[in-house]
Amino acid sequence: MLEELKKKVYEANMQLVKLGLVVLTWGNVSGIDRGKGLFVIKPSGVPYSEMSPYDMVVIDLNGKKIEGDLNPSSDTPTHLELYRNFKNAGGVVHTHSSWACSWAQAGRDVPAYGTTHADFANGCIPCAEGLTQDEVENEYELNTGRVIVKEFKKRKIVPDECPAVLVQRHGPFTWGSTPIKAVENALILEEICKMAFRTEKIASFSDKSNIGIEQYLLDKHYQRKHGKNAYYGQKKE
Amino acid sequence: MLEELKKKVYEANMQLVKLGLVVLTWGNVSGIDRGKGLFVIKPSGVPYSEMSPYDMVVIDLNGKKIEGDLNPSSDTPTHLELYRNFKNAGGVVHTHSSWACSWAQAGRDVPAYGTTHADFANGCIPCAEGLTQDEVENEYELNTGRVIVKEFKKRKIVPDECPAVLVQRHGPFTWGSTPIKAVENALILEEICKMAFRTEKIASFSDKSNIGIEQYLLDKHYQRKHGKNAYYGQKKE
Amino acid sequence: MLEELKKKVYEANMQLVKLGLVVLTWGNVSGIDRGKGLFVIKPSGVPYSEMSPYDMVVIDLNGKKIEGDLNPSSDTPTHLELYRNFKNAGGVVHTHSSWACSWAQAGRDVPAYGTTHADFANGCIPCAEGLTQDEVENEYELNTGRVIVKEFKKRKIVPDECPAVLVQRHGPFTWGSTPIKAVENALILEEICKMAFRTEKIASFSDKSNIGIEQYLLDKHYQRKHGKNAYYGQKKE
Amino acid sequence: MLEELKKKVYEANMQLVKLGLVVLTWGNVSGIDRGKGLFVIKPSGVPYSEMSPYDMVVIDLNGKKIEGDLNPSSDTPTHLELYRNFKNAGGVVHTHSSWACSWAQAGRDVPAYGTTHADFANGCIPCAEGLTQDEVENEYELNTGRVIVKEFKKRKIVPDECPAVLVQRHGPFTWGSTPIKAVENALILEEICKMAFRTEKIASFSDKSNIGIEQYLLDKHYQRKHGKNAYYGQKKE
Repeated sequence: MLEELKKKVYEANMQLVKLGLVVLTWGNVSGIDRGKGLFVIKPSGVPYSEMSPYDMVVIDLNGKKIEGDLNPSSDTPTHLELYRNFKNAGGVVHTHSSWACSWAQAGRDVPAYGTTHADFANGCIPCAEGLTQDEVENEYELNTGRVIVKEFKKRKIVPDECPAVLVQRHGPFTWGSTPIKAVENALILEEICKMAFRTEKIASFSDKSNIGIEQYLLDKHYQRKHGKNAYYGQKKE
Repeated sequence: MLEELKKKVYEANMQLVKLGLVVLTWGNVSGIDRGKGLFVIKPSGVPYSEMSPYDMVVIDLNGKKIEGDLNPSSDTPTHLELYRNFKNAGGVVHTHSSWACSWAQAGRDVPAYGTTHADFANGCIPCAEGLTQDEVENEYELNTGRVIVKEFKKRKIVPDECPAVLVQRHGPFTWGSTPIKAVENALILEEICKMAFRTEKIASFSDKSNIGIEQYLLDKHYQRKHGKNAYYGQKKE
Repeated sequence: MLEELKKKVYEANMQLVKLGLVVLTWGNVSGIDRGKGLFVIKPSGVPYSEMSPYDMVVIDLNGKKIEGDLNPSSDTPTHLELYRNFKNAGGVVHTHSSWACSWAQAGRDVPAYGTTHADFANGCIPCAEGLTQDEVENEYELNTGRVIVKEFKKRKIVPDECPAVLVQRHGPFTWGSTPIKAVENALILEEICKMAFRTEKIASFSDKSNIGIEQYLLDKHYQRKHGKNAYYGQKKE
Repeated sequence: MLEELKKKVYEANMQLVKLGLVVLTWGNVSGIDRGKGLFVIKPSGVPYSEMSPYDMVVIDLNGKKIEGDLNPSSDTPTHLELYRNFKNAGGVVHTHSSWACSWAQAGRDVPAYGTTHADFANGCIPCAEGLTQDEVENEYELNTGRVIVKEFKKRKIVPDECPAVLVQRHGPFTWGSTPIKAVENALILEEICKMAFRTEKIASFSDKSNIGIEQYLLDKHYQRKHGKNAYYGQKKE
């Protein structure tokens, strides 16, 4: 069942390790088959080196396990909520990568400081509002997805134009058209978070206020890569 | 004698190198056979690349060498004291990993800033009180174990719920149910220390006071992984 | 056509990956044949692992594509402008390497803090003035080259004596006598930017004002490596 | 001539690359045969990957080249001066490793903040006084050695008890009983410089004044490893 997707999700998970975005059993990648209304996700707490494509777990859009011997990632309800609301997401990733988690722990949006950021997202990377005690104690993982969706709605951020979010005190979620694209976005987010940290510290030595990309430069970079008349890369046939 | 345990302790030691937690001859891992009342530890000052399982040294719970041609790690009395007091510790690790040592040198507890931390420990990672001149000059390594145990008692921290400590001016000790689990805990501690540093610096740029995980979120994460009704990972049979 | 140069440019691009200066499809290297008035550049948005020397694109000094199935790097007009004005540049490199980008995002020149810097450049590494909205919205990449050239003229910096620049909010460009030399300069720039950051932070703890290399020491190091009577390295025959 | 020593010096140089202490052609290692009054050093500006043991250059204690087709490292007179004054040095290393250079560029001694430091040196790592214009313009490399020696004499530091120094605005020199020991000391120095940086920043968040190893703890660690009654490691036969 969904052999091709399982293989892609497995390989995207393994890529997290190669890219240094996870250690031990941390992190998880899922991928969805929109036609069938099913998604495939990493099992919970299994070491990457012992995993195979056959261990991937199949879940439907009500959150019910359809296939798989193992428990799915404990973050499954968060993935589910993102798939239900972010209609173009073909893959979702969660990591505890160090720089993104550090921004999440500090409870701060990642400001758009340069073109590396603008090539990725059409504005700052939002840090969603913290969960209330009730939201944590009941349906915690589902509520994690809900606060993300709520934050995007409240701020009128289009998920396709900002494929990443920070969950306060916790860490990043990213998405993309495919599982591997979502992993690439997790890598880019990590690079951006690292650069933003360094930018602030370098600026602090002389003039803390002279940072922040100009809106017209952000627009230019975002549009040349993702806009209607994008000219970065090769034409898709 | 204890061939199986020696092999496990040897492999756990080698893992320290692979994970980048030690350089040169720094660090050491031990593992205990509670039934026999004996533990196995790395020899002192031997390069990792020249070590074999046969070089591991066997020590009893009075600190007496039972088997082995080489001197045991100079930190052996610290391991001993931890085994005597932390009854569920099956393995103990000491490293000079950079981030954990830096917190230890600064003499600070590592605050619980996020869920990566909460998945690991049920509160801050304590930095034990510094040793007095007398404690350093007499039975230094044994006293190092004693100040750790004293700190846990004083603060009423359950060792099973916080498998790591910082020794002031010195560095980290971690433990776990097995030698390799203790090594994994040394890795997690290093990641947590790194993130905590970055969290503070990111927060410092805007609002230094908005950090620290909420107690209910810490409880949730700690309990979903380690509590009675834990649902992270696969059920153990 | 230009097979030898294509191979060199390809290899210089691959070196960016090995040196950790780029991830994904970021960055680009070009190399010029001054005699023929043609330069060779990486195609746009192609993963490094899927590229071959045959994918390199040939461009003339009017910016016209002369050979190649793929689109050239979107930064091609910047390379072009540098080749037109920096007459000894045989290769040009652009990366989004983290430390150099962080300085660029902070909009700061990299001060000459030590001999590692002095071995590389005869003064600070300039951060060019930001582009205006009009410069961004029309011929953006060409204008990026123009602000670089303008900055060097305004400050009377000789490009041969400072083979690197930061573009504000964006990142570094470097050049050299050959493509691989330009890549080496991108690596050195990254090291210098990293050290300069750390130097400022270390100085900040005690005396922020006691930094900055003495002019006579800068001269000495620059001249012993690059001057008429240079004595670093082996005599070229 | 001196084939064995050349091989050791070559291998120690290659180790600098493996340990990440140098890039490109930076850094150099030498080793001395005290009986013959000759030392062997890396040639100047030759890429590590193209070097062989046969390229090592033989120099006598007057600084005269005795054997070798290539120019010796431009830092040769500094090595010479250290061999002439530090009688137990069997090997000398110079690198531009990032953390040590950053402290050197900031012109600061590296304070003894913990036991990792105390295991290495019997006090702070001194940053030598800067060279005067005259010292830079005449016999620069020899004068670099002289300011190091002068600093040790002025502060009454025994070179055997502190096998490292920072040259202001420049970088570190280390030494040891053999070339490979000097390389190990360069690695330890780098680790110590990194930890000291982080220690200061972590302390800065709460209490900047609560750092600095207690003298009795420094003595204990230094002596248990290097003192008359040292008990770290295995007994030498």
